[in-house]
This record gives sequence, structure tokens and C-alpha cells, in this order.
Amino acid sequence: MATAHIGTGAMSKSRVEAFSDGVFAIVITLLAFDIKVPQATDATLTAALVAMWPKFFVYLLSFVNVGMYWVGHHNIFHGVMRVDRPLLWLNNFLLMIVALVPFAASLLAEHNQAQVSVILYGCLLILIGIAMYLVWWYAFSHGMLQLTGATARIHAAVRRRILFAPLVSLISIGVSFVSVRASMFLYLLGVATYLLPGEVDRYAKAKS
Amino acid sequence: MATAHIGTGAMSKSRVEAFSDGVFAIVITLLAFDIKVPQATDATLTAALVAMWPKFFVYLLSFVNVGMYWVGHHNIFHGVMRVDRPLLWLNNFLLMIVALVPFAASLLAEHNQAQVSVILYGCLLILIGIAMYLVWWYAFSHGMLQLTGATARIHAAVRRRILFAPLVSLISIGVSFVSVRASMFLYLLGVATYLLPGEVDRYAKAKS
Amino acid sequence: MATAHIGTGAMSKSRVEAFSDGVFAIVITLLAFDIKVPQATDATLTAALVAMWPKFFVYLLSFVNVGMYWVGHHNIFHGVMRVDRPLLWLNNFLLMIVALVPFAASLLAEHNQAQVSVILYGCLLILIGIAMYLVWWYAFSHGMLQLTGATARIHAAVRRRILFAPLVSLISIGVSFVSVRASMFLYLLGVATYLLPGEVDRYAKAKS
Amino acid sequence: MATAHIGTGAMSKSRVEAFSDGVFAIVITLLAFDIKVPQATDATLTAALVAMWPKFFVYLLSFVNVGMYWVGHHNIFHGVMRVDRPLLWLNNFLLMIVALVPFAASLLAEHNQAQVSVILYGCLLILIGIAMYLVWWYAFSHGMLQLTGATARIHAAVRRRILFAPLVSLISIGVSFVSVRASMFLYLLGVATYLLPGEVDRYAKAKS
Repeated sequence: MATAHIGTGAMSKSRVEAFSDGVFAIVITLLAFDIKVPQATDATLTAALVAMWPKFFVYLLSFVNVGMYWVGHHNIFHGVMRVDRPLLWLNNFLLMIVALVPFAASLLAEHNQAQVSVILYGCLLILIGIAMYLVWWYAFSHGMLQLTGATARIHAAVRRRILFAPLVSLISIGVSFVSVRASMFLYLLGVATYLLPGEVDRYAKAKS
Repeated sequence: MATAHIGTGAMSKSRVEAFSDGVFAIVITLLAFDIKVPQATDATLTAALVAMWPKFFVYLLSFVNVGMYWVGHHNIFHGVMRVDRPLLWLNNFLLMIVALVPFAASLLAEHNQAQVSVILYGCLLILIGIAMYLVWWYAFSHGMLQLTGATARIHAAVRRRILFAPLVSLISIGVSFVSVRASMFLYLLGVATYLLPGEVDRYAKAKS
Repeated sequence: MATAHIGTGAMSKSRVEAFSDGVFAIVITLLAFDIKVPQATDATLTAALVAMWPKFFVYLLSFVNVGMYWVGHHNIFHGVMRVDRPLLWLNNFLLMIVALVPFAASLLAEHNQAQVSVILYGCLLILIGIAMYLVWWYAFSHGMLQLTGATARIHAAVRRRILFAPLVSLISIGVSFVSVRASMFLYLLGVATYLLPGEVDRYAKAKS
Repeated sequence: MATAHIGTGAMSKSRVEAFSDGVFAIVITLLAFDIKVPQATDATLTAALVAMWPKFFVYLLSFVNVGMYWVGHHNIFHGVMRVDRPLLWLNNFLLMIVALVPFAASLLAEHNQAQVSVILYGCLLILIGIAMYLVWWYAFSHGMLQLTGATARIHAAVRRRILFAPLVSLISIGVSFVSVRASMFLYLLGVATYLLPGEVDRYAKAKS
């Protein structure tokens, strides 16, 4: 029915993607915008820039994390055939947490020895993972995903992939009770592991 | 006629959506960007973060509000078949007010006990509701909406839905004369009510 | 030829539009982001907000101006059939000047009695008008615009429309030598005049 | 297979473009947002604005550079037929460096006599060139580019074009050991050279 789309927002997938791309793009750029020129004279500038290394470290870490979630979002919505109001709001919930990453990143960079920064950063990543999972789960369980064959196996692989990052965060938070610095580097290690091709890619490659 | 589109901008709906998505996405991300790392030592950081709760409260409130208007915008334009210059400018008027939300949100967060913050925040939400209604009304009354059957009933339901948020704001402003704090929480209650599925959704579900 | 698009960027109109929409949307939102919560106690907040009126005035003025240029950009590119490298760069030149509007707006708001602010603001608007005209002229004279019939008449009407805003700015700059305040309000008057339907709209209406 | 796209992100080129356009658009606008109203009275405002010339110079330089990379990105992706996970991440790596340009530009503007600013700015441009080349090379060598005929010749021309900017940066860095000021202007000269039509354009013109 022509009227049906008012209220349901059927077929409007492209706008959800455009809106989400916008938020991800701005978040990623604001991560860099939080890195400010240090207060220094020309003579002390090099030293001041070197002393800023936690800023660059956290930028790298956060960029890869947000990029990872963007790639995940991209992959999930690529299979989505239609969207409804609950899916829009699950996606908004995801974006609401993603938009807080620059704040958590600044906190971690400026207070890189404080345990509360590491814990907050990790909690945010865990929340993003959960939100991402809810988006995938809702779309999957309501038959909104374009999937044929081997559904259960793909589902399990994607679920493992989505829930991997929150697991890394949980371990990092645990480690922070022993060493805050070690915890920070563990985040980077976790992210690096993710970048390796996984089961989902192998499956996709075999199919293509 | 091929010439007709110069000046009218017929068929250019996708750019209006892209432009609006851009503004909504930036507004939503700037809401979070206004939350700054507190001035504190590592030792006092946790306390300083807890003391920032009005910032996070207002972020949640504003994010849901802007998200709500984005969903509404998305639903209206989903049914729009063509745009003309007045519709472009009604939409620009809407975006002009939406872009002020981060300012009103900062004001509310930093002066959460001042009645003028609560009133200004509410007035902005009322103006957004009115602008949204004007966009819908203009498109509807000029036959720009793709609607078949039950037009009047859908129209009434959408109107009630659009005008619900300004009503909540009006009541919140009234309550602010008694208690500023109560007024602030009333906004959140109003927003929560909106998130429940409404008549428009039931109608859409029945049709699909 | 399949190779031809490497280097020319033929058929890539949608990305030019998306990129431009992005810049316009961010500029418009940053205009509002420059309005900051005033330094005041809860008791003096209302007075402090009222004293900020030039900020809101300049926001309104600049939003309408940028919105106007976005509508113009939208209308020109709606008729563009293909883009080449020079058109990309003329468009980039346009965006480079548009991106400076938030700076000029802040300058005008904070120094609203200084003639140099009014002149700089006007010069920027004149440059935008010229850049816009160059984009239109290049696309038109290289046969990139989808136009049939009455070409010359449409061309003349669009040219008048594009060059109207720079004219208003020129007059405002002239008036600033007599009264800076009068000059500022003249900008608003000029913008209001533009919003009335013009010859291009009447022509388009007659054709549709 | 319908399942194959989960994980590979095949056919999702448009979102990669939208995401990249978003980042480029925000970076370009933030370049201008770093230019702040100078601390001055109305009487000293003109002098203060003139003294800000390095800010405007660096804005011009950086805008043209980022614009150049956007045009290059646009041209590469115009020929891309499909994207996979490695290409997504090479593109993310490119965007991660592009997002740092506003920081490097601020550094160069505020410390325009310090050699470290000139070197850092140049290194960033070199990294962008390398990232761009990797994106092109990966897409080319994995058969993701839509190319027919004269492949080798086009490849060589595009490679020369992409690697030209890093070369200019390398020379500018070298010159900075003799004169920092000369090095800064050399960047602008290099950019101006790029804007002239090159071999790729001539080839494209001959084909079209």
C-alpha cells in the first residue's frame, strides 16, 4: 500500500545509512580535532609535541575502533532489506554511544594514568558492541536480513565477530586493576587482532 | 519540460534529504562534543565526572529529541514526491532551529537550576515541532505527498504525533514556574512516552 | 570508453553534490556552534542572554545567506549533466569561501560596531556570489547544463538572480561608511527581498 | 550468492564514498573553523586581522591540498567496481591521516617559523600520498578497477600524478633546512603546479 510507508519508514535504508555515515564521519574527524597545538615557543615545540604522544596513541586506537564499528555497521546494513521504527531507534542508540567516543578518548589521553579513564573507555566500547549486536539481532530475528542458506552458521560467525571487541574491553578493564598502562596497550593489541581476516571473511571468500 | 527544473528544483528530494541528514548528524555529534573533560587531577577525576551528571542527562534528553525529529523528518520526506522552493525554505527554517539545540542543551546543562534555561530549551522544542508541522502541512496541502486511501485519518494521526512533543514542552515550561528540576525530568518523561508505538505505527502495521 | 572516466570524473555528479552538501551542512551547523553559553550566574543569565542579541541576529542573517547559496547550488547542479576537473575546482573554490562564513559571522557578531567586520562579511558574500556565477557560467558555456528552449532568457534570469546578493553586499558596504549599524540591517533587508519568488520561479511555474 | 555480501561488503561502494566525502567535507570546514576572531578592540581589529595572514595562507594551502586529495579519491573510486575489507581499511588509513590535516595546519599557522611545523606538515602530505597510492594500487592489482585498453599507460600516468604531491613535500622539507619561510611558499608553488591540466587529463580528453 502506498500509505503504509508513512510511519514505518519502509525502504528508507539509504537515509539511515547516510545519517549513520554522517555521525561516524564526524566522530572520526572530531577525534583528531581534539588534538590541539601545544602551548610552546618555537624552541620548545618539538619537545612539547613529543610529550603529546598519548594524544596520538589514543587517536590511533580510537580511530581504528570507530573505523571497525563503521565497517561492521556497513556490513550489517548491507544485508538489511527494510527498516522499521524499532530498528531506527536501536541504530540511534548505537550512534548516541559512538558520539561519546571523542569525549572518552580525550579523557583517556589527558588522564592516561587514571584507572577511571580506562574503565570508562572500555565501558563505552562494550556498550557499542552491545548496541551493534542488538541492531544485528533485531534485523536478523525479524527477517529483515537478506540471507539464503547456511543462515545459522553465518549468524554464529557474525555474532562472534561483533562480541569480540567487547570481550577485549572486558579483559582490558580487568587488567587495569593491576596496571593502567598495560590495560591501555591491551586495547591496541585487541584491535590489531581484529584486523586479521576472520571466519566471516573466509566464508565470504569461499562463496564468492 | 527539461528547462522546468531550473529554479524549481523538482526531483531533487535526495539532496534535501542528504543536506538535512548532514545537519541532523552534525547536531547530534556536537551535542556530545560539548561534553568536555573536567578540570581535575587523576585523584579527583571520578568525583568530577560524577558531578557532571547534568551534562550526561541533557545529552541523553537532547539526543533522543533530535533523534525523534530526525525519524519524523525521515518519515515525512519518505512520502514526499517532489520539492519546490517554499518547501526547501520551510525545511531550512526547521534546520536553523535544530542547529540551535546544542546551544540550548549546553545552557540547560550548565544552568540546570535557572528557569530561563528550561524555558528556552522548551521554546526551541516547540519551534521545531511547529516547523516540522509546517513542512508536513505544506507538502500535504500542495499534493506533494504520496498518499492513497484513508488520507484524512492518516493526516490526523500524523498531526497528533508531530504536535505531541510541543505539548510536552508547553507543560514542562508551565511546571518550571513551580519547580525547575521537576520540569527538566518532565521533558524526559515526555520523550519516553513518545518512544512507545503509537496510532501511526498500528495503522502502518495493519496495512503492511 | 570505459577508461575515459579516470581523470575526467564524468558521471560523478552525485559525489560533488554529496561533498558540497556536507560542507554546507557543517557550515550551517558551525554557525550555531559559535554561539556559546554566556559567562553568568543563574541570577544574571537572562540579562546576559539578552545582551547576546547580535550573535542571534548574525546567526539568522548568515543562516539565511548560506541556505540561499545552498538552494542556488542545488538548482545549478540539478541541471548539470556531467562534471570535469575545472568544474570540480570552481566548486571547491566556492566551498573554500563558504567555509569562511562562520569566521566572518563571529567577527561581525563580536565586533558589530567595527566597520572592518561589516566590510569583510560583505566581501565574503560578494566572493561567494562570484564563485557561484563562475560555476554556473562554466557549466552553461561548456554545454554541461540540461536545457532546452528559451535558453537565453533562462540564462539571463539565473544570472540576475545569482548576482543580486553581491549587489546587496556592495550597497551594504557603501552604507557602512555612513553607519555601521544601518549597514548590518541592510544585509537582512537584502536577504528578505531574495526570499520573495522571482522571475525564475514564475518561469518555472509557467512551464510545469 | 545472497549470503556472500555479509562480511565482504561487496557492492557497497556508495557508502565508502559517502563516508569518505563526509570526512573530507568536515576536514575542509574545520580548517576554516580553526581561524578564530582575534583578541582586539574595534580600534585595533584591522591590524589584528592583517597580522593573522599566516592563518589565511595556511588555510588556502591546506584547502587546496585536501581538495586535491578529494578530487583524487573521487577519480580513483569512480573506477572502482567493488570493495572488500582490505580496501575499506586502506581507505580508513587514508582518512585517518587526512583528519590530522587541521592539526598540522594549525601548527604550521601558529608556529610558521619553526622547522618542526614545516616538516610535520610535509610528512603528513607524504603519508596521504602513500595511502592514496596504496588504495589505487590495491584496487588496480586486484582487478577492482573498471579499465579497458591502454591499462599500463593509464596506470603509469595516475601513479605519477599521485606521487607528485609527496615529491613536492619532500623537496619542501629539504628546503626547510635552509629557510623555513621559503619552504612554506614552496608548498604553495607545488600545489599550483598540480592544478595545471596533466597527462591524465589530456589522455581522458582524447578518449572522450
